[in-house]
Amino acid sequence: MNLRFTNCRILSSDMTVTDNAELITSNDKILFSGNASEAAKIAEGMAFDRVIDCDDDLLMPGIKDAHTHSAMTFSRSLADEYCLDDWLHKAIFPREAKLTPDHVYWFSKLAYAEYLAGGITSCFDMYFHREASAKAAVETGFRHIFCGAANDFGGFETLEDNYNDLNSYDPLVSFIMGFHAEYTTSEKNLRFMAELAHKYEAPVFTHISETKAEVEGCIERYGVTPAVLLDRLGIFDYGGGGFHCVWFTDEDREIFKKHDLWSVFNACSNLKLASGITPVYKFIADDMKIAIGTDGAGSNNSLDMFREMYLDTVLSNVETHNAAAVDPAVILKAAVSDGAACMGLNDCVSLDAGMKADIIRIDMHHPASLPENNIVKNIVYSGNPGLVKMTVVNGNILYENGEFTTIDIEEVRRKTASMVRELA
Amino acid sequence: MNLRFTNCRILSSDMTVTDNAELITSNDKILFSGNASEAAKIAEGMAFDRVIDCDDDLLMPGIKDAHTHSAMTFSRSLADEYCLDDWLHKAIFPREAKLTPDHVYWFSKLAYAEYLAGGITSCFDMYFHREASAKAAVETGFRHIFCGAANDFGGFETLEDNYNDLNSYDPLVSFIMGFHAEYTTSEKNLRFMAELAHKYEAPVFTHISETKAEVEGCIERYGVTPAVLLDRLGIFDYGGGGFHCVWFTDEDREIFKKHDLWSVFNACSNLKLASGITPVYKFIADDMKIAIGTDGAGSNNSLDMFREMYLDTVLSNVETHNAAAVDPAVILKAAVSDGAACMGLNDCVSLDAGMKADIIRIDMHHPASLPENNIVKNIVYSGNPGLVKMTVVNGNILYENGEFTTIDIEEVRRKTASMVRELA
Repeated sequence: MNLRFTNCRILSSDMTVTDNAELITSNDKILFSGNASEAAKIAEGMAFDRVIDCDDDLLMPGIKDAHTHSAMTFSRSLADEYCLDDWLHKAIFPREAKLTPDHVYWFSKLAYAEYLAGGITSCFDMYFHREASAKAAVETGFRHIFCGAANDFGGFETLEDNYNDLNSYDPLVSFIMGFHAEYTTSEKNLRFMAELAHKYEAPVFTHISETKAEVEGCIERYGVTPAVLLDRLGIFDYGGGGFHCVWFTDEDREIFKKHDLWSVFNACSNLKLASGITPVYKFIADDMKIAIGTDGAGSNNSLDMFREMYLDTVLSNVETHNAAAVDPAVILKAAVSDGAACMGLNDCVSLDAGMKADIIRIDMHHPASLPENNIVKNIVYSGNPGLVKMTVVNGNILYENGEFTTIDIEEVRRKTASMVRELA
Repeated sequence: MNLRFTNCRILSSDMTVTDNAELITSNDKILFSGNASEAAKIAEGMAFDRVIDCDDDLLMPGIKDAHTHSAMTFSRSLADEYCLDDWLHKAIFPREAKLTPDHVYWFSKLAYAEYLAGGITSCFDMYFHREASAKAAVETGFRHIFCGAANDFGGFETLEDNYNDLNSYDPLVSFIMGFHAEYTTSEKNLRFMAELAHKYEAPVFTHISETKAEVEGCIERYGVTPAVLLDRLGIFDYGGGGFHCVWFTDEDREIFKKHDLWSVFNACSNLKLASGITPVYKFIADDMKIAIGTDGAGSNNSLDMFREMYLDTVLSNVETHNAAAVDPAVILKAAVSDGAACMGLNDCVSLDAGMKADIIRIDMHHPASLPENNIVKNIVYSGNPGLVKMTVVNGNILYENGEFTTIDIEEVRRKTASMVRELA
């Protein structure tokens, strides 16, 4: 599909806004973005499937959800009364034992619909029955990056096959090494993880320091924090990173900095599960690589990256007694650009020519976008999923003005409603 | 206007959901809400301006924004780097000195558009050039409740006239006694406020205990906290309440409980200005009267009550180490019902017959509303303004599927853009 977006503004990779712009896509890629008069030359002789007058709206790179459990939409507003440990063991694990690939297929589709409606163009997803999600992602046209979720209950035996199979499955799908968490993984399995990372010279991701109890447990077991342990085992020798990072020590941050690892924040989930508040300002002060995720719909409970961006910006203020503890432009960059690099999507970091056409259109006529004292701040402080007018993934329009082009939301609604009853 | 909503679900006053329902309005009031078969009898012989098939969507009472400064939309994303004190004195007060009634008229209209798009049907607004806001509200059809904003810079001399004039201006407009805050008001003026409250046997509202410095200042000046001081002066003898209440002591809460006063929370503004986190769970444990507001767009920076509901529910979790510190149903009730009572709108608290027709339609086909494990939790934990499909105030449809019926949003966009430049 070739698309021409006229009369738009474009968020540049340095988080400034280019006025009087156009953007042209050719199949899955951005062919041009920038000055409208230059665009006219490029467009000459091209055939377009759609010419879209953006009416001065903003085009920006799609938002990257850098930590999620997509199919956990089944557990939205379920067992909300539990803290992380109880929530996992009493509410989630028993239901997950019943989940079939068909369940995961439909609950993944529901997640993709919510991602697309909220401007999210790719997710870094840790879950199982991955072949079912992969099928749903490709059918939807959504960019789905899997993260290994192995733990002592299973997954290590198939990790290498997943890595090889899912990385050659479809251009929209890839797989990054990972395991669930130190607290669900024996030392033997952790050592296996390190071997595999070395064999493939692969980055590894995991849940890390999400709760105080988890860190205390690791210290009890090994005498050190999870980050120190995993570093010593060589798991991070080829990069990767951690999800949550709420209870990081200064030493943990140093280890992450040393290996150039990604710290992925999940503010809503951490608040809701009473896990804690990540001192985002410290990670930024240490010039660390940061990205942002929603976590699953069971613990968030939405897949709304606008709310995450807001909280990652303002939650540091109270602790620091500083209303400008975190620069909203840094957080927006983490959400739309750095998140892509975190999940290995180096061709999805900006709207520059040559990048993949993962693009969203933000309504600049919505009252929450007005007045335009500062567009970047408006998005981070005042944005919400209702501002997303269009979502394009890999050059295809998947969502426009409330309608999905590849998802039958009524079918998803019916199927997931009956499946929720099956799992109860 | 007579409206008939068929094929809907209705949020009852006890925060449960009635299925297979209908709702009928007659002019500004709800004539019937409940069982569809009963509705057919009521509807017989009635002429309807619209019969709206809700396709199983949820109707609920409009959301009440119980503390805001509507016209401060001019300051959205402006001077975000300041804490409350600097923000007021360096950024806001100098610009407010330039504000004309015409500015306030247009920036109020912008706020009304954002309220309506986010399901808010009335606001409890503290600002000046009130006649301009009142005009804009009546033209829009929006329900605007003013709160007195007097302080030592002005307002006490006109407070009584405002009270009498604005309470007879239009059915959509009313005025409740109030003053800005203890820290901007001399003891002489506070005593005047108390006299006026006694003369009219009127409730009084004010900003209170928003920052630690404010409370410390009051203790320095008077030896007691603001709540104790205002109680001693007799300001709360006929009810009223306070906005923010972040730094309340146990004694402050006892005083508020004794006078049956409203505590109005503003979580986003308090986070963003580094003011603190209100321990909402304590107010609920003490069975106090609570409501929720956005505060102004300059400090929030949005007018998004879904984000407020979310934060008022989850922010207590971390402090209490309890993922269920606050019941989301209590927060939803505070936002849609109790907020109405707080601002004197006792005929806007529910969708029961006889109440004013202030109604919103929530999209139950949006992915963020699915699956329906728990509808109330879905709204509080996973809702966002994008779920609002229709907003009805006083029986009139003011917003539907992204369009405003009484606001020319393009005119608002143009006017406010040029006015922002004038104020700079």
